[in-house]
Amino acid sequence: MGKFIQGGTVQMFNAPSVKSYAAAVGKKEGEGPLADCFDYIGEDVTLGTDSWEKAENMLQKYAFSIALQKGSLAQTDIAMIFAGDLLNQCTASGYAVRDFDIPFVGLYGACSTMAESLALASVFIENGLGGNIAALTSSHFCAAERQFRFPLNYGGQRTPTSQWTATAAGCAVVSSREMPPYINAVTFGKIKDYGITDVNNMGAAMSGAAYDTISTHLSNTSKSIDDFDYIVTGDLGLVGSELLYDLFDKDRVNIQKKHKDCGLMLYDLKGQDIHAGGSGCGCAASVLCGYFLQEIAQGKIKNILFTATGALMSPTMIQQGESIPGIAHAIHISSE
Amino acid sequence: MGKFIQGGTVQMFNAPSVKSYAAAVGKKEGEGPLADCFDYIGEDVTLGTDSWEKAENMLQKYAFSIALQKGSLAQTDIAMIFAGDLLNQCTASGYAVRDFDIPFVGLYGACSTMAESLALASVFIENGLGGNIAALTSSHFCAAERQFRFPLNYGGQRTPTSQWTATAAGCAVVSSREMPPYINAVTFGKIKDYGITDVNNMGAAMSGAAYDTISTHLSNTSKSIDDFDYIVTGDLGLVGSELLYDLFDKDRVNIQKKHKDCGLMLYDLKGQDIHAGGSGCGCAASVLCGYFLQEIAQGKIKNILFTATGALMSPTMIQQGESIPGIAHAIHISSE
Repeated sequence: MGKFIQGGTVQMFNAPSVKSYAAAVGKKEGEGPLADCFDYIGEDVTLGTDSWEKAENMLQKYAFSIALQKGSLAQTDIAMIFAGDLLNQCTASGYAVRDFDIPFVGLYGACSTMAESLALASVFIENGLGGNIAALTSSHFCAAERQFRFPLNYGGQRTPTSQWTATAAGCAVVSSREMPPYINAVTFGKIKDYGITDVNNMGAAMSGAAYDTISTHLSNTSKSIDDFDYIVTGDLGLVGSELLYDLFDKDRVNIQKKHKDCGLMLYDLKGQDIHAGGSGCGCAASVLCGYFLQEIAQGKIKNILFTATGALMSPTMIQQGESIPGIAHAIHISSE
Repeated sequence: MGKFIQGGTVQMFNAPSVKSYAAAVGKKEGEGPLADCFDYIGEDVTLGTDSWEKAENMLQKYAFSIALQKGSLAQTDIAMIFAGDLLNQCTASGYAVRDFDIPFVGLYGACSTMAESLALASVFIENGLGGNIAALTSSHFCAAERQFRFPLNYGGQRTPTSQWTATAAGCAVVSSREMPPYINAVTFGKIKDYGITDVNNMGAAMSGAAYDTISTHLSNTSKSIDDFDYIVTGDLGLVGSELLYDLFDKDRVNIQKKHKDCGLMLYDLKGQDIHAGGSGCGCAASVLCGYFLQEIAQGKIKNILFTATGALMSPTMIQQGESIPGIAHAIHISSE
């Protein structure tokens, strides 16, 4: 059943397996350092559709169907889908899942959605609620820019702190304990707001939430960072990662030595003109489902604390003078 | 643990209780036929704030804090919050929950969110994952109109099929079996798209999803509509309700005799110039948390199948020629 610990942690008794996983990405992501890890790389940002939103739907469909294929699963084997994305009304997920005849739980956690969906799927499987449950999310650079900042045609200058929303999707299918990777524990995070109002500095807005969720998870499960090969954050980028180190420094914890950030792994920051790093639901999703899960399955990495981070940034609320709340959810994924 | 049935149903073994509940509404809702049921009625649509979005935050905060008060609960008694709303980036929930130090799972299910959040909370409690879990949602007429259709200042004419987004919030706190109302079973629905493209006809877009989820729930739990006092839909309104009757007629089921629609209960349709009925997450939420849960707690109503319905309508996708997918989640709530 899993043991619930006040503070949002569920410690699994029968650690569910991630039975299958896939990552589908755009052209730019397919030219980055993790190119060899991805199951599908698009030829351009449209993926043969006539809009960026529809291209993002395609990314989710590819990630989902390749994950099924890799796990020798049929659509009818999937009991439920937990999915969400960055677009208003979560249309990337809604319009992708529309074509599957599968019960759907729609989520909004901004860029934390890969952890949110995977955590919920794991809790359901741990409790025998379904045979296989899919966790699915995505983002698309062009669709996100015009929704959250400026239409690309405007040709706006990107600031040094700005991050590049990944054109990417990831899908993980969770089932009962069988083979690694295993889900050992999850922590649902709290909303943390450090008063950041700069829409081009998402890393700063998320670092406080990452700190809170990682600390809570370690404390709730009586673990330290030394129990992990890596503490993986979703998309703090250069700025947010530095702030995370500062926050842990105050607790006399050197998290830097164990830290990996998906936003700093997906691209060649300088060569690909990325500025402070990658971001978007698809960033953490594709790095998890393309790289980390594979490494853990093969036993090359033994334990990670995957902590996807979301900035709950609303252009409307920013115009009303509000700050940007952050959230992070953490998952202990293990080869053991 | 609950038994999972393919098709998205979780049959509870230890039927959790809705320990406490509250509804906070705006002025217009407080002038309707259910006025006496609400815990808080605002004096106007601003609730003393300087924006409609902030007013919606206030509604969620009122619903949550009154629910705590009615259940003699402190914030620290709440293990988790499942919440979402209609606003982009679910800001009504995010900015409301920001002020609580409670783990948060953000949801997007459009107007189905009261059922989605209550179903997830119930599944967690059934499995011992937390002592008390809150399900929370809201909507606001003015905030929704400008986001989904036109700014109010534009003075657009409302069509006869259009529905009035409720300015309202509801909160239900679920805990382990104690007193009625009990959650006997839940069904997570599938996305259904009947090709509706009229942004002023949400009822039609949702009726197919309501039909599918209600049918699935009855079939999965071996029940018929005669096992319920009422089959309650969220906000199908006049148009969607008629379509629901037509869909069930084909199965030779007369659902009309058992049917109640929150969208047809919240307002005096003619006297308050509502057109086809109420809608919005807050419509089903306030009618459930204001009226039905109270009636069930007192034993006046024994069994309802509460089926909140959502139209996953995206202005962006409509402009791209897409149709409006619908979703519905169902919950069997009982006094026994």
